Amino acid sequence: MAPKNLKLIYFDARGRAEIIRLVLAATGQKFEDIRITQEQWPSEKPKTPFGQVPVIEIDGKKYGQGLAIATYCAREFGLYGKSNLDALQIDQVVQLGVDFKTAATKLFYEKDEKKKEEILKSLKEVEVPKYLGFFEKLLKENKTGYFVGNSLTLADVYVYDTIYFMVKKGILTTEGFPHLQELYKKIVNHDKLKPYLEKRKDTDM
Amino acid sequence: MAPKNLKLIYFDARGRAEIIRLVLAATGQKFEDIRITQEQWPSEKPKTPFGQVPVIEIDGKKYGQGLAIATYCAREFGLYGKSNLDALQIDQVVQLGVDFKTAATKLFYEKDEKKKEEILKSLKEVEVPKYLGFFEKLLKENKTGYFVGNSLTLADVYVYDTIYFMVKKGILTTEGFPHLQELYKKIVNHDKLKPYLEKRKDTDM
Repeated sequence: MAPKNLKLIYFDARGRAEIIRLVLAATGQKFEDIRITQEQWPSEKPKTPFGQVPVIEIDGKKYGQGLAIATYCAREFGLYGKSNLDALQIDQVVQLGVDFKTAATKLFYEKDEKKKEEILKSLKEVEVPKYLGFFEKLLKENKTGYFVGNSLTLADVYVYDTIYFMVKKGILTTEGFPHLQELYKKIVNHDKLKPYLEKRKDTDM
Repeated sequence: MAPKNLKLIYFDARGRAEIIRLVLAATGQKFEDIRITQEQWPSEKPKTPFGQVPVIEIDGKKYGQGLAIATYCAREFGLYGKSNLDALQIDQVVQLGVDFKTAATKLFYEKDEKKKEEILKSLKEVEVPKYLGFFEKLLKENKTGYFVGNSLTLADVYVYDTIYFMVKKGILTTEGFPHLQELYKKIVNHDKLKPYLEKRKDTDM
């Protein structure tokens, strides 16, 4: 039974909720995009299942954990491939994205300027070529312009979301990774994602 | 189509592969449990898809990323619930386990003795009561003795695996969390897991 009523609760940021918004936007789902302020957070926090956001409310019941929610939405609305092996390959790409994002977000949590520089250097010289190399190789092997099967899945959207914030922060470009560059363009021009991306709020994170 | 031939490749340790072994053991699947030594690693690494283990070889093709593999096996062999909402709730528990494990494994990567002590203190006073509290609450709410639905799923096995290494290292006990304690016992006495756990190799990690 498809959910009738979806409410997404997060801060006024892309952060850990944007992958969920992107999945819902790419599949044309209506949802209430509730953005709470830092001032509201202390009173909202106890209403979340695990003291965290994102939270999704599905037909009145709340669930936590961003990746669990994004994967649920991908399964529910057709961005999760056609077989269990497709799903394995989608999750494989998503988990590479998680690792890449984990390495990159260290930069934003580090306060010490010298350590920040070291992390940035390692990102540019080690992690960026490593992960973009993996993504490029997987796209090249699949030959369809998508990571898995021959249409858009959570894997493509997850990698776009991961790369987007690093492109925006000047940490990477897709230059030299032609298949990845092609996918990035395809997502930006996707019939449902294009209007979403054009009108989404430009937040810092 | 069910896979005919499963080979799991990892180090001679529980680590990131044990959740996969537990899922396969709990569902009675035969698989080749290939354990490579540190000496073999430099020559084995280039044969892995992403320079990492665990890797699973399914009917001759290799896939990486431990959680993607464990989830694939759970779906394939019936430890992933009966609906998409079940799957969301399973993933929610698994992701809480991932967060908990991430907090705990910092302890083993930290070299500085003073910082190690601080991490251990925080673990015992903050993370352990927090995550065990979440697990206890979810089990209590579901009322079946399992996290999701009324039978064993990836969620139960994941939490067991996460807690096991902390119990072993003396970081936590399930004392004071009766539903969790009950689940832990049930897994240790599970008809397929009991013989597996009794004969599994006792490695440090």
